[in-house]
Amino acid sequence: MEAIEQRITEQGNKVRSLKSSKADKDVITAEVAILNALKAELKALSLSDPAAAAATAAPATKPAKGDDKKGKGAFTLKNAKGTKDYTPQEMAVREKIFSTIIKVFKKHGGTTIDTPVFELKEILSGKYGEDSKLIYDLEDQGGEKCSLRYDLTVPFARFLAMNGKEYQNIKRYHIAKVYRRDQPAMTKGRMREFYQCDFDVAGTYDAMIPDSECLRVLAECLTELDLGDFTIKLNHRKILDGIFEVCGVPEDKIRTISSAVDKLDKLPWAEVRKEMTEEKGLDPKAADLIGEYVQLKGGAELLERLYADAKLGANTRAKEGLDDMTLLFKYLNVLNVTRYVSFDLSLARGLDYYTGLIYEAVLEGSAPPTLANGEKARATVKKGTDELDESTVGVGSIAAGGRYDNLVGMFSGTNKKGQPNLLIPCVGISIGVERVFSILMQKQKKEDIKSNEVEVYVVGLGGVSVEERMKICTELWDAGIKAEFAYKLKPRTQNQWDACDRDMIPFAVIVGNDEIEKGLIKIKDMRSKDESQKGGIEYPRTQMIAEIKSRLAQL
Amino acid sequence: MEAIEQRITEQGNKVRSLKSSKADKDVITAEVAILNALKAELKALSLSDPAAAAATAAPATKPAKGDDKKGKGAFTLKNAKGTKDYTPQEMAVREKIFSTIIKVFKKHGGTTIDTPVFELKEILSGKYGEDSKLIYDLEDQGGEKCSLRYDLTVPFARFLAMNGKEYQNIKRYHIAKVYRRDQPAMTKGRMREFYQCDFDVAGTYDAMIPDSECLRVLAECLTELDLGDFTIKLNHRKILDGIFEVCGVPEDKIRTISSAVDKLDKLPWAEVRKEMTEEKGLDPKAADLIGEYVQLKGGAELLERLYADAKLGANTRAKEGLDDMTLLFKYLNVLNVTRYVSFDLSLARGLDYYTGLIYEAVLEGSAPPTLANGEKARATVKKGTDELDESTVGVGSIAAGGRYDNLVGMFSGTNKKGQPNLLIPCVGISIGVERVFSILMQKQKKEDIKSNEVEVYVVGLGGVSVEERMKICTELWDAGIKAEFAYKLKPRTQNQWDACDRDMIPFAVIVGNDEIEKGLIKIKDMRSKDESQKGGIEYPRTQMIAEIKSRLAQL
Repeated sequence: MEAIEQRITEQGNKVRSLKSSKADKDVITAEVAILNALKAELKALSLSDPAAAAATAAPATKPAKGDDKKGKGAFTLKNAKGTKDYTPQEMAVREKIFSTIIKVFKKHGGTTIDTPVFELKEILSGKYGEDSKLIYDLEDQGGEKCSLRYDLTVPFARFLAMNGKEYQNIKRYHIAKVYRRDQPAMTKGRMREFYQCDFDVAGTYDAMIPDSECLRVLAECLTELDLGDFTIKLNHRKILDGIFEVCGVPEDKIRTISSAVDKLDKLPWAEVRKEMTEEKGLDPKAADLIGEYVQLKGGAELLERLYADAKLGANTRAKEGLDDMTLLFKYLNVLNVTRYVSFDLSLARGLDYYTGLIYEAVLEGSAPPTLANGEKARATVKKGTDELDESTVGVGSIAAGGRYDNLVGMFSGTNKKGQPNLLIPCVGISIGVERVFSILMQKQKKEDIKSNEVEVYVVGLGGVSVEERMKICTELWDAGIKAEFAYKLKPRTQNQWDACDRDMIPFAVIVGNDEIEKGLIKIKDMRSKDESQKGGIEYPRTQMIAEIKSRLAQL
Repeated sequence: MEAIEQRITEQGNKVRSLKSSKADKDVITAEVAILNALKAELKALSLSDPAAAAATAAPATKPAKGDDKKGKGAFTLKNAKGTKDYTPQEMAVREKIFSTIIKVFKKHGGTTIDTPVFELKEILSGKYGEDSKLIYDLEDQGGEKCSLRYDLTVPFARFLAMNGKEYQNIKRYHIAKVYRRDQPAMTKGRMREFYQCDFDVAGTYDAMIPDSECLRVLAECLTELDLGDFTIKLNHRKILDGIFEVCGVPEDKIRTISSAVDKLDKLPWAEVRKEMTEEKGLDPKAADLIGEYVQLKGGAELLERLYADAKLGANTRAKEGLDDMTLLFKYLNVLNVTRYVSFDLSLARGLDYYTGLIYEAVLEGSAPPTLANGEKARATVKKGTDELDESTVGVGSIAAGGRYDNLVGMFSGTNKKGQPNLLIPCVGISIGVERVFSILMQKQKKEDIKSNEVEVYVVGLGGVSVEERMKICTELWDAGIKAEFAYKLKPRTQNQWDACDRDMIPFAVIVGNDEIEKGLIKIKDMRSKDESQKGGIEYPRTQMIAEIKSRLAQL
């Protein structure tokens, strides 16, 4: 504490001397900032040190004895709300998920890019509709106004707009964290910081070809992750817009009515209808007409029915969407993914930027249960906490995506005719890996997860020196073998065996002073309870590497 | 624009109706937040649309015609200051770096953990000395005060303090982005968002054993990264403190004098001396004594000299440090890393939390050049920009670290005797991967970097349908082969060959309608200019997978 006070005094002298010598303004500003940082540090220290706090407090104030329960210097030791740490065991599972997904992305020609965690605030403005309120802003510390990214799609579109000459077409994947100031529901994997795994195809291509490959990629990922049966719900924004048009929704109400429809997977139709009519001022007759359409679902045969619909079949927008879906079903058949999809007119997707095909993957058996009154169960906020209690409902969608042909154009500026300077149509998927993680973690015991990859533990017996054990490890490392030894001068023998067991290390190289003298080592297979190997099988030291390598090759 | 205005009207109605019906306060607050978000969105749209802005402006104001050069809806399309995107080619190089480093970390038993990008502000307070002013804070949006992490070490210590029962000892590595509001120097790899690659050993062990392994890990990483010759400078905080003590530096000035010494790699002694005496008020005699010590460097032999030094050899703290260094040099010898290290008394390291051994790795030939006047070159701020011009100086240190035995205790609270509740000594290294990246990128041409892993391109000739090409790809994908086809109904033949060349795809599977009918395909090795394979070698379709797999196995 005194050291900091001392530095504050010095820094103060420095600032005063710079000011009096009329030094460069920027230099003074920088030095004042250091001074303020030191003062803040002192304040933080004082607050965490009741003795110091008492010393600076007015004499009349009682020392805050009650606060001393946790000991001096106590403060809230926790993660920021909605965020968590991942232990080595959890990371092993996460990395397995990532490598599974990346393998599929690469199989389909994906390359990866990286964009910063924060963007200029204006880049994110006007892209997320009602959800904009969930964006994290950085404090204005003199400079640009920035926000943490809300998804990976808008930064990708910004990247394309900036690099459009070089990247007119690209299959890119991006696995990274995004940030939303949402109500956390940790047990269901809903966090404020969470990973998204995105695969997007950008470029001007023939209709529905990249779209169908995206669905194939999604189906492959979900199959490889081994999460059980899943359904990919499909719909098309143009069909939805056509429906709203023929039902008499005014043009300027289309997006807002669409976002009401999007709630149909969580709310019963009666409530969605109420939102449309009472909150959003829609004619009840129009709402009832919509209700008939959006409750339809099925396969390719539903297309026939919609084409045949007198009103919808005659609507230009709907017709375009139906033609797309016809083509899509043809391609999905070739790609062997028809069995996973369901054409579902209630799917609307919340985000504003979709312009064509939209989809959402749901795990079977994760739909909300139906209550006695015929309505679906809804998540509620747990009493006394601010976490959503979703124990009554399913995990929900684990992946989603769609086509967004105009997002890049929103960043490119417009020409004199008001058209975007750059048009790069895109389609993509986003996998909600936190939900996948929750599901996979529940399937296994934490103790059974091997979190390091050590292949050999060097065990010293009978007071063999740490240098000798280190020397053996060095030989193993030089040969590319993953090896450890105990960081003690005189480790207990049992502790060395325990380390092998705890970390599931397959082999032990064992030495005593006797072996060292004779140029020998022993190798023991730690997985085997085979009594014949006893304390390990003896080899000349010179054969150690070859023997270990041959044993590892057989694992 | 009208759609949003419409939604604002609706949302306004909703809020009014909730207020009049005396709804739950939290519900009203949430709905008002949505209303405000919509209003902000409208404002953002108005600002980016000059026509709308003009419409809402006072009639006397001229329409901002000059602003229309970039087209309507124009705004600053850029990354936030000090951040950048990484292209697929750059990512290929980065991932190579990460995988090289991770391989070494895993070879030494490293397991990984993940911590959030932001922490409670108070977790970071009082840990970084003068550099605290570089911490990014999140805006207070009603909730906790949070900051972006400044390094990975403090969050690791926080993790240990929270999970100390389960993780009394752990070798953990963590590769992740950290954030500093520093002056960017992009060409040298100094960014505001950048990766750190950390490897730390936590646990109570015998002296210098994990420390020496950390140096071995560092030497292995730098060797494997193939960056050319490097030196790891070593020093010990206790030796430094001993020096300050015997030179007559008052106890409360030790840290501040130490941070002056730390500048010796960038400033000449004369300036450091000036800082000590004029700014920090040190007795000039003490400064001169320090000057004699901190200019010493060498190998293990320097230890003898320091032990023999009448004053230093008698100082308890220095003695402890010298004993540690003696042990360290013994272990480094066994580990074969002595050749990389230099015992350098001018190394001090800026961070407050180090308590023992400290080190810093420097690439040979990256030291600042010596100017005519005998002083070392210094970085200056480029005219007209706020970027540091470091073209006259070297890349500087590319890795650093040291022992920090008390950091975990700072988070654990203290007992009645004022001792920390939890003591977990730690030692670790941090590799500045951005600098490594800058160096490696300069070594190769961007065009020569293969950024995707596609193995087979399916080429259609003579108007073969997209479904046929898709079908072949599906067969390849089902067999785990990485494959692509053109997303066009009628792709031009040349474009398909170009795609193979651009992405360095080794094999083409070629089909025309003729081959499809006969159940044949052709395979062409795209890397070979061997004329004998002409348009590709013909195989029965049923042998395609086996043939491709056998060719891939030979790559």
